[in-house]
Amino acid sequence: MQTKDTYEFGLVGLGVMGRNFILNVAENGFSALGYDLMPEKAEALREEGAAVGKVAASSDLNEFITALAKPRKIMLLVPAGKIVDQVIEDLLPKLDTGDLIIDGGNSHFRDTDRREAYLKSKGIYFIGAGVSGGAEGARRGPSIMPGGAQEVYPEIQPIFEAVAANYAGSPCVAYLGPGSAGNYVKMVHNGIEYGMMQLTGECYQILAQLGGFDNSEIRTVFERWNQGRLQSFLVEITSEIFGKEDPMGTGELIDKILDKARQKGTGKWTSQNGMDLGIPVPTIDISVSMRAISAFKTKREEAEKRYKKPAVSLVDKNLLEALCEPSLYFAFLMTYAQGLHQLREASNEYGYNLNLATISEIWRAGCIIRAGVLDDIASAFKEEAALEHLLLSGEFTERITACIPTVRKLVSKAIESGIPVPALSASLSYFDAFTTGRLPMNLIQAQRDYFGSHTYERTDREGSFHTEW
Amino acid sequence: MQTKDTYEFGLVGLGVMGRNFILNVAENGFSALGYDLMPEKAEALREEGAAVGKVAASSDLNEFITALAKPRKIMLLVPAGKIVDQVIEDLLPKLDTGDLIIDGGNSHFRDTDRREAYLKSKGIYFIGAGVSGGAEGARRGPSIMPGGAQEVYPEIQPIFEAVAANYAGSPCVAYLGPGSAGNYVKMVHNGIEYGMMQLTGECYQILAQLGGFDNSEIRTVFERWNQGRLQSFLVEITSEIFGKEDPMGTGELIDKILDKARQKGTGKWTSQNGMDLGIPVPTIDISVSMRAISAFKTKREEAEKRYKKPAVSLVDKNLLEALCEPSLYFAFLMTYAQGLHQLREASNEYGYNLNLATISEIWRAGCIIRAGVLDDIASAFKEEAALEHLLLSGEFTERITACIPTVRKLVSKAIESGIPVPALSASLSYFDAFTTGRLPMNLIQAQRDYFGSHTYERTDREGSFHTEW
Repeated sequence: MQTKDTYEFGLVGLGVMGRNFILNVAENGFSALGYDLMPEKAEALREEGAAVGKVAASSDLNEFITALAKPRKIMLLVPAGKIVDQVIEDLLPKLDTGDLIIDGGNSHFRDTDRREAYLKSKGIYFIGAGVSGGAEGARRGPSIMPGGAQEVYPEIQPIFEAVAANYAGSPCVAYLGPGSAGNYVKMVHNGIEYGMMQLTGECYQILAQLGGFDNSEIRTVFERWNQGRLQSFLVEITSEIFGKEDPMGTGELIDKILDKARQKGTGKWTSQNGMDLGIPVPTIDISVSMRAISAFKTKREEAEKRYKKPAVSLVDKNLLEALCEPSLYFAFLMTYAQGLHQLREASNEYGYNLNLATISEIWRAGCIIRAGVLDDIASAFKEEAALEHLLLSGEFTERITACIPTVRKLVSKAIESGIPVPALSASLSYFDAFTTGRLPMNLIQAQRDYFGSHTYERTDREGSFHTEW
Repeated sequence: MQTKDTYEFGLVGLGVMGRNFILNVAENGFSALGYDLMPEKAEALREEGAAVGKVAASSDLNEFITALAKPRKIMLLVPAGKIVDQVIEDLLPKLDTGDLIIDGGNSHFRDTDRREAYLKSKGIYFIGAGVSGGAEGARRGPSIMPGGAQEVYPEIQPIFEAVAANYAGSPCVAYLGPGSAGNYVKMVHNGIEYGMMQLTGECYQILAQLGGFDNSEIRTVFERWNQGRLQSFLVEITSEIFGKEDPMGTGELIDKILDKARQKGTGKWTSQNGMDLGIPVPTIDISVSMRAISAFKTKREEAEKRYKKPAVSLVDKNLLEALCEPSLYFAFLMTYAQGLHQLREASNEYGYNLNLATISEIWRAGCIIRAGVLDDIASAFKEEAALEHLLLSGEFTERITACIPTVRKLVSKAIESGIPVPALSASLSYFDAFTTGRLPMNLIQAQRDYFGSHTYERTDREGSFHTEW
């Protein structure tokens, strides 16, 4: 490796994500230096980088810092949480005023705000950049969601635009807003991801139990869907997953995987922050809850023995597929709608000044929630500049209206058959509540005033009122 | 008022709740002194207390402190948040080692933990006690949920047991556990309250729109329900609410109340903490979300114009009432089940050592979620000591099984008719998921491993596995 003022880009954290990201940077012509405390990780990068060129690795922090061109651009791809603070503390004494640190992990947006303020006081720029696409995305082109120090964004912009995924000529990266805007957008991205994953799971269970589809048939269905308006990364990989043989035996791997889903926090944060801001994201909420419920496997098995499921009368396979496709499309739309609504309201609350069209655009490729429909969503927010909610888009009104009768039919059928469809039904409930001018919340307000004197508003005059009930 | 070492009980915060609570204390024979910074509130207590006796008021903090018998027992009924800390700071320099502060407000349990540790370091005991029942409950007998300094609980126990609501000879108060146990239990109580309120709202909308019931008929239905297994405070007051004339005009008040529901935080905290602990409480989550959605009234009205509701074919009134009653009963049970499950798991996590039978017992009277069925729930947790979840109770298995076909019918019918039933359907989804031994989370685990190398477990052997998909 070169030793002084040479490398245009530094990266701390040479796990799979980090190595893949820096290889991507180097492959795009930027000289890049990776650092990891563990020599074997630095060595792994050296080996992988040999064929790429322009990339070196070090496990000596002084060497790493000295070899970076100034002002330094150092990206962290380390686990979110205390490790980020630790790395920042390790770097700080060695940096010069005007250097830039980029956090590419799933940091909580409040941590990003805290770190940016702290680093600013030390003369160091900070950019929180969500990166989505997994290990493969990091290597071949992720979607990158940067926010924070706008004045130095141009320094990193050429690198980000070169490494990011590309959608029809546009790189899937854009400066999104000040402070923690980038991490916030990534958090909501992940919330949407939770919703979409849960929804594909529910369709799988419906196809299998209500239609008698076997794994290979489910594979074909998702493959077919991926050719149409459901085209998306998650539908695509679902199809591949159902075609995967079990490497440890005969049959399909999917049947051998335990049905306890784990989570790492970002989906949960989306729901929790939605509740803090008073923005409804019920499809995301229930997807978080369902991962939680899945963990109680022993109790579920015990409960299953106690409660007999209703007899299922199988639905014709073609008919069922035709019921599922618009339902999944509709529910995907509701999940995006909820996430985008949350972004819109959070933007007002936190001063992010987010552009929903831009966000939809940079999600069109590279990231886990990429989907054909995001191009249409981006267009809707572009064309209708004042659009406040996807449900109010002229373009989508017709599409959604066309799906609704089918969704009602499928959800009812699943409910009658005892097949859990929490996210599908939450998506429909969300739609039904959002399209109801008069909800029964007048009763809730009356109850609150009855027992807690919390007062209520009236429909026919201004003010707060209390009644002696 | 007496001036020195006289009053057995002190109360800070003479709002309606505070005045009612201290009048209740005095009426039960304990001499009590109230304090409020605002002289007019102290004066209000003097006036209201004249007929009761044994109660005095002051707006001079030194006078208040001096007049209390030592060790002092001072309860705070002030708004949760910074005011509690402020009051504690005001009191601290004037207190003696061994004095006891009781926080009776809806403080966040983490604040209670923090305050207890802080006060302990100052030699002051701290009890966080949730108080439910509203203003009326405070005066006539609330349900009290104390936790914290067990060693001094006997000092306050006689007062709490005298003022608490009484259920068949048992006071609705018990020491629940160390630290923030009392505030935690109250928080979950309020989460359950959110769920039950949302559920009564959904039944109201169903009765009105699917059955054509008018307000007076709805009143009668809830009145009838309150005679049976749905007997509960919320069903009772719902009936009364539907009978209330509009004091500002003709017709019923319910129709004039704006359908935007407010919230103060405890329901939201229940959901957020459930997510932190990985405990599913979807009926509570969606009830929080629905309050949020109700706030977007203008958008809802706009959306309603865009999306035509399905034509509703009215259901016979008797039939509809017969569909709603078991559905509401079932959904109430699921809400209690979720809350109690959260308490059980939180008890392990935070070392509260909660007794679910005791908690169900002290909820049987005085509080907002009091209901006849809580006596049965208490029995179930008493008789089946190892009972981990209400769904696994022998007693309730039969009851729930009997309701389920009706619930499916009603939820399906509402969904087909475009009537939002998010909490009813979330309750049913919860049941369906919890009684499903094999959920489609194997697909979610496969997806996570596909794009993030997060690994998965297998059904047929121990360990973590990763596949190159």
